[in-house]
Amino acid sequence: MSHNNIARKVQNLQSSAIRELLKHSKMDGVISLGGGIPDPDLFDREGLQIAMDNVLSSGWKEAFQYGLSEGSPALREAICSLLSKRQIHCHVDDVVVTSGSQQSLDILARALIDPGDVVVVERPTYLAALQIFQLAEANLMSVGTDGDGMIIDELEALVKTTRVKAVYIVPTFGNPGGVTLAEHRRKQLVELSKRYGFVIIEDDPYGEINFTDKTFTPLKAWAETMDNSDNVIYTSTFSKILAPGTRVGWLVVPGWLKRQVVNLKQATDLHTSALSQSLTWHYLQTGRLSGQIALIRDAYKQKCQTLSQHLEKELGDHLTFHQPMGGMFLWARFKYELNTTQWLQKTLNNGVVYVPGEFFYCKEPDHSTLRMSYVSVPEANLKEAVVRLKASLDASV
Amino acid sequence: MSHNNIARKVQNLQSSAIRELLKHSKMDGVISLGGGIPDPDLFDREGLQIAMDNVLSSGWKEAFQYGLSEGSPALREAICSLLSKRQIHCHVDDVVVTSGSQQSLDILARALIDPGDVVVVERPTYLAALQIFQLAEANLMSVGTDGDGMIIDELEALVKTTRVKAVYIVPTFGNPGGVTLAEHRRKQLVELSKRYGFVIIEDDPYGEINFTDKTFTPLKAWAETMDNSDNVIYTSTFSKILAPGTRVGWLVVPGWLKRQVVNLKQATDLHTSALSQSLTWHYLQTGRLSGQIALIRDAYKQKCQTLSQHLEKELGDHLTFHQPMGGMFLWARFKYELNTTQWLQKTLNNGVVYVPGEFFYCKEPDHSTLRMSYVSVPEANLKEAVVRLKASLDASV
Repeated sequence: MSHNNIARKVQNLQSSAIRELLKHSKMDGVISLGGGIPDPDLFDREGLQIAMDNVLSSGWKEAFQYGLSEGSPALREAICSLLSKRQIHCHVDDVVVTSGSQQSLDILARALIDPGDVVVVERPTYLAALQIFQLAEANLMSVGTDGDGMIIDELEALVKTTRVKAVYIVPTFGNPGGVTLAEHRRKQLVELSKRYGFVIIEDDPYGEINFTDKTFTPLKAWAETMDNSDNVIYTSTFSKILAPGTRVGWLVVPGWLKRQVVNLKQATDLHTSALSQSLTWHYLQTGRLSGQIALIRDAYKQKCQTLSQHLEKELGDHLTFHQPMGGMFLWARFKYELNTTQWLQKTLNNGVVYVPGEFFYCKEPDHSTLRMSYVSVPEANLKEAVVRLKASLDASV
Repeated sequence: MSHNNIARKVQNLQSSAIRELLKHSKMDGVISLGGGIPDPDLFDREGLQIAMDNVLSSGWKEAFQYGLSEGSPALREAICSLLSKRQIHCHVDDVVVTSGSQQSLDILARALIDPGDVVVVERPTYLAALQIFQLAEANLMSVGTDGDGMIIDELEALVKTTRVKAVYIVPTFGNPGGVTLAEHRRKQLVELSKRYGFVIIEDDPYGEINFTDKTFTPLKAWAETMDNSDNVIYTSTFSKILAPGTRVGWLVVPGWLKRQVVNLKQATDLHTSALSQSLTWHYLQTGRLSGQIALIRDAYKQKCQTLSQHLEKELGDHLTFHQPMGGMFLWARFKYELNTTQWLQKTLNNGVVYVPGEFFYCKEPDHSTLRMSYVSVPEANLKEAVVRLKASLDASV
């Protein structure tokens, strides 16, 4: 018996290094900067309890019965309201509820990508997106990033010579890069998409986790003002602002793609858990989400500052990084050549792990990069993590 | 902009007739025998409430946090116990929790099927399975069924001349055919799989909904005794015995396929709703499942008898069918040529709908067949439905 060719590729993508890392990060005494997991101590237990009580007391049969593949109409309505605060104006028919952003991306890849189609990603980019586009047998290309996010001039040079099907981007508080696409580049990207007719897949899980007073306009909102809505697909999730375990995300899709996306959603899992959808809707009705977002934002901002200050102070001669303006990740690069995948064994011995940067590249990885998440680590441990990283460096020099 | 080739196929599969049917079946006064939806009046509200209270009072953080792609170890353990009562002996490592059977099939198709691989299904077969194997670009072939299920002699003739990758089958109380594979054919099928090296995908959502005193040995259990476990994959779900809205199913996979299935599950949606998994586990701990299954079984049995008796009495000259021994569906065929897709418009005018049989064939449909589900329809309405079907027939003769 044999699995198929694509399944074999998925196997290869999941390198044993990453699997080992995940295993070790659960060991006693090891501080993990590796995960991308929200801090469960911030979950709104009271609010979730109220919402669940309401699920079970009103409309409970709907929460346990089959539902529509596109998702609960009430929840999609509530998502439209939420999006209007993000400057995105859409209709309930434009929204498809998914079982999280991961599924949004998988469905999009299956709906859009034929084998060999060029998909452009940031360098570095989200690991699981790479996995999905590789599954779809896309021809993956990448464009560099700096402190202002994806370098759109570089993308322009590429689209002038290459037929690009789609650009995948996390423009706001990106994963893993931690950078945010500057406003003028947002406009430039949407213009390019209009001129060259490629689709933008805007992945926005972190946009609400904003450490600054600035607002960043979603590409989807830029597209509305630039008459390019048909080319911009938006995906977001409740995972980072409410709770990931319920698996509720959503897509905003243009009309030409709607039927295919819904059919694929149906083929994939019929519909997203009706219980999770009902719970999410009832939670939104409590009016507690904005307070919850403020809580998460303040806590993560504090942790981000702690980690970055200590990195600067203790490892500033060795590492360079952009201070995140939001989100969950800090991305750093050694000022000299150091293979962070190999270094991981040393840091593990000293009781700290991170994700080596090489896993976030579709090709030609920069081996001297690493991704650190600060959100689930107590502040004292963030300081200790930096001490341990430094000790591992001393040992390796 | 354009979607891809496969997405276009999915669009074509979802015929407008089926969509219209679903729309009309919601109309006031129309009795729908069309759906495959469990009776929500039988949901165990009290048990679900107890389970949810336990979710929220113990281990509630895990219910809202990211989890393992293969599913909660505690739930997988409980599934092994449940399976041992079905004569299947497996280890927790063999079980992967999915977001329902639909996802189990989608993941299997993606893990196993390369474009052009031959997949054999029953004639008729489950509509959504057809959709999934078409998405995977399988070369679909079918084998006839009679009152004893798939005609394995016909399959044997096929595998002798054709390299078959997989056989997909709902052996017990099938959908849509309502028939059950006879015991000697089960053994014969597993032997064939061993001899010719094809995979059996055993889909068992209805096995517990048994209207008889007989037990039917799962193919997976036959495979254990015949040293052919590597070739038989088993999938089942809590949708029909507990509640479908939570979207919890599972796969039992042989070792050689495990890593690929888990990687694909991760790529698809990271993991099944932790809330749904936790709720299901806590429900199983209440010990109420067997009582709940007995309740469902008795209610569906009664309804099935009502429908079949009235069909026999009122339409026995027109229709032929096998009395189901369990499950949710009754499959009938006209004794003469009558296109049930065209007839649907007449029955709709008379206030009753069903699913035309042609949608359950991969090719060369038998147009004079239809599928009726009795489970969500009150008994009085089942009688009235038959009266309305008869009236529609009079009008069409």
